[in-house]
Amino acid sequence: MIKTPSPSYSIIIRLEIVSKPGMLGKVTSMIGRMGGDIGAVDIVGFKKNITIRDIIVSVADIPMGQKVVDELRRIKGTNVLQVTDRTFMVHQGGKIEIKNKIPLNSREDLSMAYTPGVARVCMAIHEKRERAYDLTIKKNTIAVVTDGTAVLGLGDIGPEAAMPVMEGKAMLFKEFGGVDAFPICLKTKDPKQIVTVIKSISPGFGGVNLEDISSPRCFEIERRLRNELDIPVFHDDQHGTAVVILAGLINALKVANKRLENVRVVVSGLGAAGIASIRLLLSTGVKEIIGCDRSGILYKGRKENMNPIKALIAENTNLERIRGPISKALKGADFFIGLSQPGVIHANDIKKMAKNPIIFAMANPDPEIMPEEVGRLARIIATGRSDYPNQINNVLCFPGLFRGVLDCQAREINDQMLLAASNAIAQMVTEEELSEDYIIPGVLNKKVSERVATYVKEAAIQTGVAKLEHQYLSSYQTI
Amino acid sequence: MIKTPSPSYSIIIRLEIVSKPGMLGKVTSMIGRMGGDIGAVDIVGFKKNITIRDIIVSVADIPMGQKVVDELRRIKGTNVLQVTDRTFMVHQGGKIEIKNKIPLNSREDLSMAYTPGVARVCMAIHEKRERAYDLTIKKNTIAVVTDGTAVLGLGDIGPEAAMPVMEGKAMLFKEFGGVDAFPICLKTKDPKQIVTVIKSISPGFGGVNLEDISSPRCFEIERRLRNELDIPVFHDDQHGTAVVILAGLINALKVANKRLENVRVVVSGLGAAGIASIRLLLSTGVKEIIGCDRSGILYKGRKENMNPIKALIAENTNLERIRGPISKALKGADFFIGLSQPGVIHANDIKKMAKNPIIFAMANPDPEIMPEEVGRLARIIATGRSDYPNQINNVLCFPGLFRGVLDCQAREINDQMLLAASNAIAQMVTEEELSEDYIIPGVLNKKVSERVATYVKEAAIQTGVAKLEHQYLSSYQTI
Repeated sequence: MIKTPSPSYSIIIRLEIVSKPGMLGKVTSMIGRMGGDIGAVDIVGFKKNITIRDIIVSVADIPMGQKVVDELRRIKGTNVLQVTDRTFMVHQGGKIEIKNKIPLNSREDLSMAYTPGVARVCMAIHEKRERAYDLTIKKNTIAVVTDGTAVLGLGDIGPEAAMPVMEGKAMLFKEFGGVDAFPICLKTKDPKQIVTVIKSISPGFGGVNLEDISSPRCFEIERRLRNELDIPVFHDDQHGTAVVILAGLINALKVANKRLENVRVVVSGLGAAGIASIRLLLSTGVKEIIGCDRSGILYKGRKENMNPIKALIAENTNLERIRGPISKALKGADFFIGLSQPGVIHANDIKKMAKNPIIFAMANPDPEIMPEEVGRLARIIATGRSDYPNQINNVLCFPGLFRGVLDCQAREINDQMLLAASNAIAQMVTEEELSEDYIIPGVLNKKVSERVATYVKEAAIQTGVAKLEHQYLSSYQTI
Repeated sequence: MIKTPSPSYSIIIRLEIVSKPGMLGKVTSMIGRMGGDIGAVDIVGFKKNITIRDIIVSVADIPMGQKVVDELRRIKGTNVLQVTDRTFMVHQGGKIEIKNKIPLNSREDLSMAYTPGVARVCMAIHEKRERAYDLTIKKNTIAVVTDGTAVLGLGDIGPEAAMPVMEGKAMLFKEFGGVDAFPICLKTKDPKQIVTVIKSISPGFGGVNLEDISSPRCFEIERRLRNELDIPVFHDDQHGTAVVILAGLINALKVANKRLENVRVVVSGLGAAGIASIRLLLSTGVKEIIGCDRSGILYKGRKENMNPIKALIAENTNLERIRGPISKALKGADFFIGLSQPGVIHANDIKKMAKNPIIFAMANPDPEIMPEEVGRLARIIATGRSDYPNQINNVLCFPGLFRGVLDCQAREINDQMLLAASNAIAQMVTEEELSEDYIIPGVLNKKVSERVATYVKEAAIQTGVAKLEHQYLSSYQTI
């Protein structure tokens, strides 16, 4: 693969340059030759005959950054003082903080927010526990919980190393959904203990977003929490991904002029996202789905590399009971969903698919097949990446979904609410805009989460799981 | 007791008043007669011949508020539209929120704060776990944890009802210490499970503040957490109270011209705060301490109303092994610490104390003996209340203490750090200011927490428990 510089990996090079005509040109053209992409160039100081400059350079990876710096060191008349990774600077000290919503400047403020006034508020909740939704942060706060076992594509890196991702998630919840999300990273991998811990900390939260918990443990943990908790639980890696895939599919089918009931779907990867996508597609009426993993096609009665959830999926998919490698499953298929790893399918496989095939290759950071390799073989190709068209990204779903859930105090998150979220996302692309390269809205469009919230709330009310409907309950003590 | 209006209980009365001279006067003088204290009076609207006003009235309690409203309803030409409790308004929707520290406006922002850039930060922490202190919120974030069993003076009101207090605590941490504190209210009272849960959620936190956990469970929970956690643990009801009492005592002894080594101390109440105060006083060199609870004087070998921690305290206090009611203990005592309930001592008991007795009557909201009853019998009287001089309030300690602890990444909070905090607080009152009515600084003085932080940090470094000393560790990835 060709490595292109990315803003996610940019460095600030502080260097002294002798004040001589042509020196800066030497420096910048050398950076360009090494593959670096120059952003801002600032003067930060002067010494005698020397200018000190900060040059921001986007590079593709650490070796490229190293090469740039090494070559700079060889230029006579320059001296590299410091190299700083901009991404690390962004994360310094963490990315979220607590903010007080009311001032604490006077004794009066203190006596209302804290003792003695707070006692009356506590007793009002003690009398009627539901008042916690009005009088505490429970109204708008969820826990983002992980055990650090399946973080991004990085695997089991532990709870501390998972924190930057969970904080990032919390930022997205706030920015796109106005939801206060707090990261909880667990120092245990035992599903039983995870359930106990989450139940124990639940009173102050209005919902739980499970994140990056490895499969198949995630299924059992989510199932038990949904049964035993009185607040909604959502495993984003499963359902968030499934919702956005379905949203993309709804629009892709319009472009390709196919119908959901008739498509043949192949899913590569039977982890959290793959299983949930299969389940959601089945609930929308898709009839032919074949799941594949590293042992090939999943079929009823398979012995190798199984778990209870795969056994359940095998009951309801691959009704023809075909066996073999994924390439066999792809023959005549309309839609490929990749949630596995790079290289599992090739151009030749796509040639064997049905007419106007749709490819969602979402392995991260490198997709199952690169769009360049697909070329015109597929009618539509989508990936998880921002540097190609059609980015399938969970951020289109989870902030708006929880916004809707919290606004109506939904007891649970059911399939109808997930479908509503998919439809909301799909509808953000108008008929005029819809094309092979634009089947899904952009991740920075805040109107997406607004529409998702509205649709999810309506679905919650219609399915009878909303505790609050149109009424606004107030706990103000009134005489 | 005389009930005086308090800003912690004020109501907003919205009422229509016929536009006629003298009407507002009728309304306000009636409110005064009923005991209400009028704050702002605003016009919020007009109808034909009618003015709609909001009147803020401080009252002593709900019955007084009711009386005010009832009487207003009787005045001809007025119509009460709505009565709102201002304290409940303050708590509406909770008192804290999550704030993003960096913007998320562009793809570049996203790619640095979240994927793909975040992966590099995660792996840096995975390689060296200590980097979490630099690259995540762990650096400045603590958990405020309760099981809701001993909330304020309200008792076992449960985790949801405890939330308003924990949120208030979090506000104080932020306002006075710049510490990000997040409330965790536990749906379990089992000490073993509480320890398991706190250990499980610890990776994202830099410290734990235990709060309002009933005695004697709190001792065992704190002891185990201090042994088993790699971040500092502090039970504020114990040590925060002890620190502020010692601070007050240091200054009170100066006024009364007594020495710590020679004073005879009686402590009423052997819960979390009483036990911790006895322990801290013993560690400073106080020799004569007698503890009392509802079974009277604590002595070695007592059988009634005991627990392991009281047995331990009995070993090191009341060396004369006297028995009987608290009044017997007070004979010749220099210093009374009340952490129990109203009415446990009387004016006659104080008359039997040594010359220049010092009384800290800190039961909440009503002290062991009211300052009016003490009068001139004691040289100094302090309470937990803001409406009398010498308010002994934990907020003088905990924000600054954790500020110091986090700044130097202290592994634990030891006695030397507690003593340092007491000294810092005591020293905020200058020799010139020091008097019977001013032995402790005011709770709104933010310089207190700054000095506490400095002293605590120094003590941590001196006792070898600071992981960070003067050095500033940076995790910027540098080439």
